[in-house]
Amino acid sequence: MAISPELLARLEAIVGPSYISIDPEVLKHYGHDETEDLVFPPNVVVKPGSTQEIAELLKVANQFKMPVTPIGARTGLSGGALCVYEGIGLSMERLNSIIEIDEQNLQVTVEPAVITQVLREAVAEKGLFYPVDPSSMGSCFIGGNVAENSGGARAVKYGVTKDYVLNLEVVLPNGEIIWTGANTLKNSTGYNLTQLMVGSEGTLGVITKIVLKLIPLNAHNILMLVPFFKAEEACEAVSALFRAGIVPSALEFMERDAIDFALRYVEGISIAVPDAVQAHLLIEVDGNYPEVLMQEAEKIMHVVEQFAIDEILFADTEDQKKALWKMRRSVAEAVKANSVYKEEDTVVPRYMLPELLTGVKKIGDKYGFKSVCYGHAGDGNLHINILKGDLTDAHWTHEVPKGIRELFELTVRLRGTLSGEHGIGLVQKNYMDIAFSKVHLELMERIKHVFDPNNILNPGKIFPDHL
Amino acid sequence: MAISPELLARLEAIVGPSYISIDPEVLKHYGHDETEDLVFPPNVVVKPGSTQEIAELLKVANQFKMPVTPIGARTGLSGGALCVYEGIGLSMERLNSIIEIDEQNLQVTVEPAVITQVLREAVAEKGLFYPVDPSSMGSCFIGGNVAENSGGARAVKYGVTKDYVLNLEVVLPNGEIIWTGANTLKNSTGYNLTQLMVGSEGTLGVITKIVLKLIPLNAHNILMLVPFFKAEEACEAVSALFRAGIVPSALEFMERDAIDFALRYVEGISIAVPDAVQAHLLIEVDGNYPEVLMQEAEKIMHVVEQFAIDEILFADTEDQKKALWKMRRSVAEAVKANSVYKEEDTVVPRYMLPELLTGVKKIGDKYGFKSVCYGHAGDGNLHINILKGDLTDAHWTHEVPKGIRELFELTVRLRGTLSGEHGIGLVQKNYMDIAFSKVHLELMERIKHVFDPNNILNPGKIFPDHL
Repeated sequence: MAISPELLARLEAIVGPSYISIDPEVLKHYGHDETEDLVFPPNVVVKPGSTQEIAELLKVANQFKMPVTPIGARTGLSGGALCVYEGIGLSMERLNSIIEIDEQNLQVTVEPAVITQVLREAVAEKGLFYPVDPSSMGSCFIGGNVAENSGGARAVKYGVTKDYVLNLEVVLPNGEIIWTGANTLKNSTGYNLTQLMVGSEGTLGVITKIVLKLIPLNAHNILMLVPFFKAEEACEAVSALFRAGIVPSALEFMERDAIDFALRYVEGISIAVPDAVQAHLLIEVDGNYPEVLMQEAEKIMHVVEQFAIDEILFADTEDQKKALWKMRRSVAEAVKANSVYKEEDTVVPRYMLPELLTGVKKIGDKYGFKSVCYGHAGDGNLHINILKGDLTDAHWTHEVPKGIRELFELTVRLRGTLSGEHGIGLVQKNYMDIAFSKVHLELMERIKHVFDPNNILNPGKIFPDHL
Repeated sequence: MAISPELLARLEAIVGPSYISIDPEVLKHYGHDETEDLVFPPNVVVKPGSTQEIAELLKVANQFKMPVTPIGARTGLSGGALCVYEGIGLSMERLNSIIEIDEQNLQVTVEPAVITQVLREAVAEKGLFYPVDPSSMGSCFIGGNVAENSGGARAVKYGVTKDYVLNLEVVLPNGEIIWTGANTLKNSTGYNLTQLMVGSEGTLGVITKIVLKLIPLNAHNILMLVPFFKAEEACEAVSALFRAGIVPSALEFMERDAIDFALRYVEGISIAVPDAVQAHLLIEVDGNYPEVLMQEAEKIMHVVEQFAIDEILFADTEDQKKALWKMRRSVAEAVKANSVYKEEDTVVPRYMLPELLTGVKKIGDKYGFKSVCYGHAGDGNLHINILKGDLTDAHWTHEVPKGIRELFELTVRLRGTLSGEHGIGLVQKNYMDIAFSKVHLELMERIKHVFDPNNILNPGKIFPDHL
């Protein structure tokens, strides 16, 4: 799709000449996120500075029926921000203010381009806690978290992004501006458009302000790394911990390969892992009473010792804790440094994890691919990185997707679904028929049409090519 | 609207002759809930026994363009189940099985007509906790809780119904059956139709199965009743408690009148309340470590003692705890036994409570009505019972609604909204313009149209008469 000089002039009049670009290098920069090696540049990048400017931009785009793709920090893993139909790349980067930390009501109002870690630190200074911590929190935007309903390591105790979003300012594709709800903890007033917007991947409206619930900050935590001799037993231990009444604040699974990749990739961490160890659980408990945490840690030890494990490593210092978390958070990057990969974000009821893991390996054998598995086991959320390695392009393009289809079929059979926290975006959309009937997909598509009758907003995402 | 013999025969063929009635007494019985003294009987009551029968019923109703109103336990407070356009009263009462308590995954699958208390007790026997406890939990259905997104006393720590709903089986108005999501704790797979359905008050589909998240049951709690000499200070203490880092498992506010009504109404409870006491807070903390709860209770005492309070009453025995909760849960019934009333379910950010309470009294003075206020103060959710008392019918019908309009305008000005947990239903729908712009209401109405193009399902609810 080409962009006309007239449209360019209209866009420039809205944002000003400093905030619009058609420089190919710039377009390419805004044309990729962290999904595989995909690049889909827009025809033009605009960087509006206000809700009002976004409203004006969308009105014009609608008039020209020009695709508009909201772009955040481009840390996404499902291609949600890729401009697959070119058009206007709507970079949200200038809307990056923390508008108000409301200490009286334990809420924060932010613009979408605030970096999640910056937000967490700003509220922590006031003794408040925003618990959602995607692995990319050091660079991702809170607006992207809302768009994809991101999770993270603490979701197992504290929930995901959707559980903290109270209210959203949204620009609809026709340029109208609404607040979806109210700044209240409870709300039974009309349809829940707030939750409809969360996880809608920028296809229903452009989020311009976000009101989040906060909770009091916990003072203490204990972090331990438990090495298992059998990967399936590590998965089994996950469900056993909950059945013992323990609610950890993090419960992360890493296959042997995941930890090996990370240890080679991250500097300054050395952990001796015996050859016989097949997997690790990284387990954290948090709270305000250290003596209670000690008791919880003992309960955890009691549960995991029923499985075949090596010696448990307790992080004694803040530096050790940071190192362990850095290792865990670096797995994806470490694997990527080694090979192009496709990442699947499967989620199942947590007791089904061992069966999922076994199934993934069998499917890998059948289709000839190697996978590295890790993720938020407490939520039943298993990230499966499928490595390209030495596979031919033909095999990668034609055979591996068949294996992925089988993998999602297994996931759904186990009462799970395609994506726990990354979204469907571009790269999973053609598997949607596995999770949803035609009736169901058409219902979603008609909802999309209510918001965006001209299909200008982030087209080519979520819905399969052939519905 | 009359119902044709042909349609009656079609309905009877679906549910069988034992489960259909046009007896006027039966119709009247199904024509009211707990909202004021309103009665809107259907033309016919049907009691289907399965999802499949409901699907067939909806297909026929659609063909005849006949209104269908899903009816639960009729404990609602917003008139959501009233058959305002007559038609078919769809009683869900026979779908009352607990299908599966999944102890491995901490989930339960139920049919909608399971009584909430029955569900809570069934999972508690397995050491599991379903925390949502509306005051009517001894008689309300879990399906009604989902339809209205009900809250309750424990919402302040544990959240409301929406926070526990993982997946729903829904019959769409055209008779198609879908599962809205997956049985997983996280889900970023397409639009969140689960959360769109929760709180949609039976206007988008008929919920036939519900998968709920459960958590481990806490072993201990401490319950205390704190008498305040100033009602506004009781409200102020609410926000002070959270700012001190305390997360109580219940934090309930009762005006002096509320407690007096309840004490007269409920037998077997005697609490001496000095004349100077204007309000009470009922505060509970729960957890697994009694010594921690003692520390939390001390922190609470430290906070509330900064206000003008009388002696704190600690519930020493299970019987005392039950008595205090019975008193709190009986307030609405006790007030009702005294006078016809309108109940408003206002919700604001909790720090705004004192201002809301003061405003309510001022508006009452202006419009000549007396109100009894109580509710879930920890959530900023204030129930306002407006008593008819000696007011003339003309005043009640024409003047009081003007006062209610001012009251909601105040609520929205304080960044709150119309309903925290009762829904909009029939009696609040003509105030919706206060909370939402025309654009916003039309968006909701178009979503309704996507699901229900013939507007057969629970017509006359949520949307104002003149949009």
